[in-house]
Amino acid sequence: MLVVVAKFGLSLLNFLLRNSPACGGLKQSSFENLINLAQTETIMNMNNRILKLQNLAKLIRYYILLATTEAGSGHLTSSLSAVELMTVLFFGGFFKFNLAKPEYFNNDRLIFSKGQAAPLLYSLYAAAGKISQTELLSLRKFGSRLEGHPTLNFPYAEAATGSLGQGLAVGVGLALNGKYLDKLPYTTFVLLGDSEMSEGSQWEAIQLAAHYKLNNLVGIIDVNRLGQRGETMNGHNLLNYKKQLAAFGWKTILIKNGHNLPEIIKAYRLALKTKKGPVMIIAKTVKGQGIKFLENKNGWHGKALAGEDFKKALSGLGQINKSIRAQPAQPVAVLKTVKLNLKFKTAREDKIKPQSTRKAYGQALVKIFPKFPNMVVLDAEVSNSTYAELFKEKYPERFFEMYIAEQNMVGAALGFSRRGKIPFVSTFAAFWTRAFDQIRMSQYSQGNIKFVGSHAGVSIGEDGASQMGLEDLAMFRTLIGAAVLYPADALACEKLVQEAASYQGNVYLRTTRKDTAIIYQENEAFPIGQSKILKSSSQDKIAVIAAGITLYEALGAYEELKKENILIRVIDLYSIKPVDETTLLKAAAETKAIITVEDHFAQGGLGEAVKSALADKRAEIYSLAVRKIPKSGQSAELLAYEEISKDYIIKKVKEILI
Amino acid sequence: MLVVVAKFGLSLLNFLLRNSPACGGLKQSSFENLINLAQTETIMNMNNRILKLQNLAKLIRYYILLATTEAGSGHLTSSLSAVELMTVLFFGGFFKFNLAKPEYFNNDRLIFSKGQAAPLLYSLYAAAGKISQTELLSLRKFGSRLEGHPTLNFPYAEAATGSLGQGLAVGVGLALNGKYLDKLPYTTFVLLGDSEMSEGSQWEAIQLAAHYKLNNLVGIIDVNRLGQRGETMNGHNLLNYKKQLAAFGWKTILIKNGHNLPEIIKAYRLALKTKKGPVMIIAKTVKGQGIKFLENKNGWHGKALAGEDFKKALSGLGQINKSIRAQPAQPVAVLKTVKLNLKFKTAREDKIKPQSTRKAYGQALVKIFPKFPNMVVLDAEVSNSTYAELFKEKYPERFFEMYIAEQNMVGAALGFSRRGKIPFVSTFAAFWTRAFDQIRMSQYSQGNIKFVGSHAGVSIGEDGASQMGLEDLAMFRTLIGAAVLYPADALACEKLVQEAASYQGNVYLRTTRKDTAIIYQENEAFPIGQSKILKSSSQDKIAVIAAGITLYEALGAYEELKKENILIRVIDLYSIKPVDETTLLKAAAETKAIITVEDHFAQGGLGEAVKSALADKRAEIYSLAVRKIPKSGQSAELLAYEEISKDYIIKKVKEILI
Repeated sequence: MLVVVAKFGLSLLNFLLRNSPACGGLKQSSFENLINLAQTETIMNMNNRILKLQNLAKLIRYYILLATTEAGSGHLTSSLSAVELMTVLFFGGFFKFNLAKPEYFNNDRLIFSKGQAAPLLYSLYAAAGKISQTELLSLRKFGSRLEGHPTLNFPYAEAATGSLGQGLAVGVGLALNGKYLDKLPYTTFVLLGDSEMSEGSQWEAIQLAAHYKLNNLVGIIDVNRLGQRGETMNGHNLLNYKKQLAAFGWKTILIKNGHNLPEIIKAYRLALKTKKGPVMIIAKTVKGQGIKFLENKNGWHGKALAGEDFKKALSGLGQINKSIRAQPAQPVAVLKTVKLNLKFKTAREDKIKPQSTRKAYGQALVKIFPKFPNMVVLDAEVSNSTYAELFKEKYPERFFEMYIAEQNMVGAALGFSRRGKIPFVSTFAAFWTRAFDQIRMSQYSQGNIKFVGSHAGVSIGEDGASQMGLEDLAMFRTLIGAAVLYPADALACEKLVQEAASYQGNVYLRTTRKDTAIIYQENEAFPIGQSKILKSSSQDKIAVIAAGITLYEALGAYEELKKENILIRVIDLYSIKPVDETTLLKAAAETKAIITVEDHFAQGGLGEAVKSALADKRAEIYSLAVRKIPKSGQSAELLAYEEISKDYIIKKVKEILI
Repeated sequence: MLVVVAKFGLSLLNFLLRNSPACGGLKQSSFENLINLAQTETIMNMNNRILKLQNLAKLIRYYILLATTEAGSGHLTSSLSAVELMTVLFFGGFFKFNLAKPEYFNNDRLIFSKGQAAPLLYSLYAAAGKISQTELLSLRKFGSRLEGHPTLNFPYAEAATGSLGQGLAVGVGLALNGKYLDKLPYTTFVLLGDSEMSEGSQWEAIQLAAHYKLNNLVGIIDVNRLGQRGETMNGHNLLNYKKQLAAFGWKTILIKNGHNLPEIIKAYRLALKTKKGPVMIIAKTVKGQGIKFLENKNGWHGKALAGEDFKKALSGLGQINKSIRAQPAQPVAVLKTVKLNLKFKTAREDKIKPQSTRKAYGQALVKIFPKFPNMVVLDAEVSNSTYAELFKEKYPERFFEMYIAEQNMVGAALGFSRRGKIPFVSTFAAFWTRAFDQIRMSQYSQGNIKFVGSHAGVSIGEDGASQMGLEDLAMFRTLIGAAVLYPADALACEKLVQEAASYQGNVYLRTTRKDTAIIYQENEAFPIGQSKILKSSSQDKIAVIAAGITLYEALGAYEELKKENILIRVIDLYSIKPVDETTLLKAAAETKAIITVEDHFAQGGLGEAVKSALADKRAEIYSLAVRKIPKSGQSAELLAYEEISKDYIIKKVKEILI
C-alpha cells in the first residue's frame, strides 16, 4: 500500500484528510470524489487499507472495553484516545516488528510511556493474533501476563511503565544504542500522555535526544486534554507543545484530529522521512473516544464500565469484525556489523600508594572493557569526579555525556540494558536520590544497570551536607535482586567493578572521595555476597563490622585496643547486599557483641542490613552511624562529629565490655 | 539614584552600555561623551553609583579569592562569574532587604540555586558588613556558619542548596506564597547556573511559574558556559535559553555581557517592571572572570588557588578599597493583612463504616484547617485519589494544583515552609521516590513539610507494581528529625493528620487505598512516638507488630490462633519513626519472639525500625515483608503472594512455637 501512497504522494492523503469525517472513516461521497480524480484500482486499494485499519481500530476498541469491564478496573478512556494513533502505527506499515521473533535485534521498539493505556497495548497484540480473547479477559488478574500497567511479564513490553514521565528516557537509551552503538536502522517509538509532559524528566530526555540528534526516535503525544483529575496545563492547545518542543530542537508534526486515519498516516510518513533529529507527533485526541457518553468527559480516568453502561457502550461500537487480524510490517533484514575497538594497552599502575576507590573505578572500567565489550558508560556531568572520564578517554565511542539530568540517565541506561548492553552509570552518591523513581522502576524491567555513586558519606568533608551521599545504601538495598557493594580500597574496587559487570541484575557500587590505603593483595577475590575478616582471633571480645571509609577507623581501633590487650574482630562487609550471613553468624556466636560502623544515616544501611541478617539470632548489636545534620569540615572532624571514628569505636567497645 | 535613571530613561543606560568596556567599568572617554550629552551633576551621580558598584565588585572578588584560598577548596570560578550580577542586584537598589531584620516578612528573597557559588553569597554579606573578614576566612571549616554549600547555619540563606536544579522550585513556593497567600509585594530572586538548566526539575518549576503567572519571581541564569567537566549543551548560546523559556511563557531579558554594570542595571530595571509573569534574565558571563589565567578555562571548577597562583590573582585584581561597605535597599513597609476564610461548617461524618485512610486524610485537612490557618495544600494531579480534593473544594484559595511534577512540588512546599506555612503535599506513595533529592535537601533547610503518600503497598491490587509504594518508609525514615506515621483506620488517620500539623519538622504520613474497618474510638489520642497495644494478656506467646493494612491481618491471625488457645500480642506501630521503644522492649521481654508484618519491602521499613530499636536487647525477631516482585491481582491475593497475610502470620507463629 505504501506504493500507492508514494505514487500519489501527499496530495492524495491531503485529499482524504480534508474529506473524511472526525472519527477515522471515509464517507462514500469522499470516495466518489476520489473516483473522479484517480484510477479506480488505486483508490480501491487505499480504500481497502483504510477500511481495514478502521475495522482493526473498532476491534481494538471492543477488546479494550471487554477487558476492562471483565477486570472491573483499568484505564478505559486513556486507552481509547490513542486507538487510532496506535492502530495506524502498528498495522499501517510504520512499526516494523517480527512478532515471531520479538528478540530480533533490528525490530523497531515501542514504549507505552503512558503505561495506563496497557489495555490498548494488549489489544494491539490481540488484534495481531498473539493474545487470545480468553487471555485478554485475564487483564489485571493474579497470575496474568497482562498486568494493570505493562511489565516484562508481557513479553512484548519494552519496559515496565506506569510511573509517568519515564518512557521517553528509555526511548532515548534505545535510540542512542541503535544510532551510536549497534548502528542499526531500527526506529524507537514512544507513546506519551499529555499529562505526563509536566514531568521534568521528559524535558531531560527531550534536551538530550536533540543534543544527540536522535533521528531514530519518534514520540507521539496523545493530547486528550484530561489528566486523572482534570484538565492539563495546556489542555488541547497543541501549539504550546509544538513551541516548547521546537525550542529544544525537535521536529514537530501536528495531528489536528488524532482519530482521523489518513491524517495519522500522513504524520507517520513525514516523521519517518525526517533525518535531522528526533520527531514529536502531537495529536489532538478525545479521551474516551468511541464511547459517546465518555468522550471528553472528566471523572472517568481509570474507571471501567459495568452493567447497562457496558451494554450501551458495546452497542455504540456497532458491528465488530472479530475475526480480522493483521501484522506489523517486517523489519529490514540487516547483517549485524557492530565493531568494537578493543585495541589498547592497559596502563598498568601498581596499587601500593593510597588511592581513592572512585579513581580505581575509572581505571577498572578501562581494564575490564575488553572482557565485557557490551559495556557502555554514562555520567551526569561529573566524570572528572567519578573518574568515568578515564573510560571516556580510552573509548569515547562507548561513553555518553548525559549532563546534569540523572532521571534521564537512568531511563537511558535501562534502554541500553534492554538492548543487551551493560551500562555503568555514575554520579555523586547523593544525586542518585534524584532518580529514585527511575531506579525503582528499573527493577520491574529486569534492569542490568551498574550504578556507581562517588563522594559517599560525611568523609567528603568541606563541600557540606548537600554533596554527601547518606541515604544511598538505604535506597539501593530496597531493590529486589540488586547487589549493593562498597569497596574500601582500590584493589577491592577494581575487583568489584568486574563482579558488577558479571552480575545479572542491578548493582550499586559506592565509592569514596578521598584516597584510602591499599589493604588487599592483587590476587584477592571479592565474590558478591561474601566479606573479609581482616582481624580475628579466638579471644575476640567484640566484632566490628565496617565497610569503605569506616573500615580504616575499625582497623585503627583494633591497633589501639590491642595495646590494651582488648582484641576485636574486624570484618569488611564490602557486599552489603546480599550480605554474608555465615560470617556474621559466626561473629555473633564467637563474640560478646557486634558493633556496626557506617558513614551513612542510621536507617536502611549497613547497620540495619546486619541487624536483619541476625534478627532471629538474639545477637547484641550496636550501631554507629550518621545521626546529626552534617556540616562542612575536614573528613576526620566530621567522622568524629558523627561519632563514627576510631575513637568512638574504641569508646563503644569499652562501654560494652565494662 | 533610581531617580536619575528614571529621568534619563533607558537611553542613558543604553549609552553607557555601548560605551563601556567588557569588565564593568566606564572609560573616561565614555564619561566625556556623556558630559556632552547631559547635565554634569546627573552624570556625576550615575558615575558615582557605577564606581561604587565597581569597587564593591572588586572587594567581593577579593573576598572570594581570599576565602577559597584560605579554605584550600571551594568554587572560586563559579563565584567569580556572577559577581557583577549579584553586586548590582544586592547593592544597586533592586534587592530590598532589611539586614537588621532578616525575618521581616516583606523582605525580598534571594536563593542561590547554584549553591556552589557560596563564597560569592558570603562575600556579599561581608561587603554589607554582616560578616567580618575573620569569619569569611572560616569558610568550609568545621563549626563555621559558612559551609561549602549554603545551609541554614548561615542565617541569610533562604534554603540549603548545592544539589543542583532545586532553587527555582523553592523560589516558586516563595513566590506563590507572596502572590496568593500572604499577598505581599516582595520579589523572589533565584540565581541559577547554566549547567543546572539540564535538570528536569527546572522545567517543572518553569512550567508551573508561568501557569501561576508569578510576576514576583525573577530568575538570573549565569551562563558561564562551563560545567564541572566541560561545556554545557548550550554553551554561550543565550538564544537557546531564551527560546526555550519563551516557549514556556516566561519573559526573557538577555544580558550580552554579564560583567557590564550598566547593562545589568538595565536588565533588573526591566525585570522589575514586568507585570505579566515570571522573568528570566539570561546573562553571558565568563567563568573565573577577573582572574586572567582562569577566565573561560576548563578544569578549574571547584578549585581554589594557592601560592604563586594566588599572588598573581591578587595582584591582577589591583587596588582594593577594603573599607567600602553598602546595604541593600530597604523593603517597602506594608501592613500585613492576610485574611483567611474560616467560614465553614464541618460536614460531620460519623466514622463507623469501613473507610479508607486516604479519604480520612482529605476530611481531616478540612477539619483541622481552622486550627492551623497557616496550612496550604498541594497535590500532584491525583487529588481525587489522595482526597486532597476535599480540602480544595472547601478552601480553593489555599490549594495549589502542582500537576505531575513531584520534584517541583517538594521544592515549592519548602518555599512555603520557609515563609511559615504548613504545607501538606500529597501524591501516591510510590511517586515520592521521584522527589527524593528534594525531600533529602529539605531536611537541611529545616523543612516543615507534611508529606502524604497514598496507595501504599501491594494491597492496592490491580494497578500493578509501578503504582505500589514499597520503599517510601525506607526513604522517609532516613530523614533526620522527621516523623513517619502510618495509620490503620480513618480515626487514627484524622488524629495523626492533626499531630502532623502540630509537629515541628518534616512528617511522612502513609495512607491506604482500600477501605479499612474502624477499630478505634473517637476520643483516642495518637501521640507521635507511641503505639497501641490492641491485644495483650499475660499468656502472650508472640508479639505481632504491624501497621496500616497488615494490622488487620494481625488481628485476623489473633482471632484464629485464639481458637487454638495460642495468644499473641498485637501492636499497632502507627508511629514508625520515632518508634515506641518502651512498648517494644516490654513485648520483647514478655514474649518468646516478635514478628513484624509490613506491606513494604523488607529493607528500611517497619521491620528494620523494630530491629534497630531492639538491636542490643538480644530479642528474637522475624519479619514478614514484600520480598518478591509484585504483580497485578486482588489485594488479598497479593498479601498472600507476598506472605504478609493472616495465614502467613499464623504459619510463622506456629513455626516459632514448635
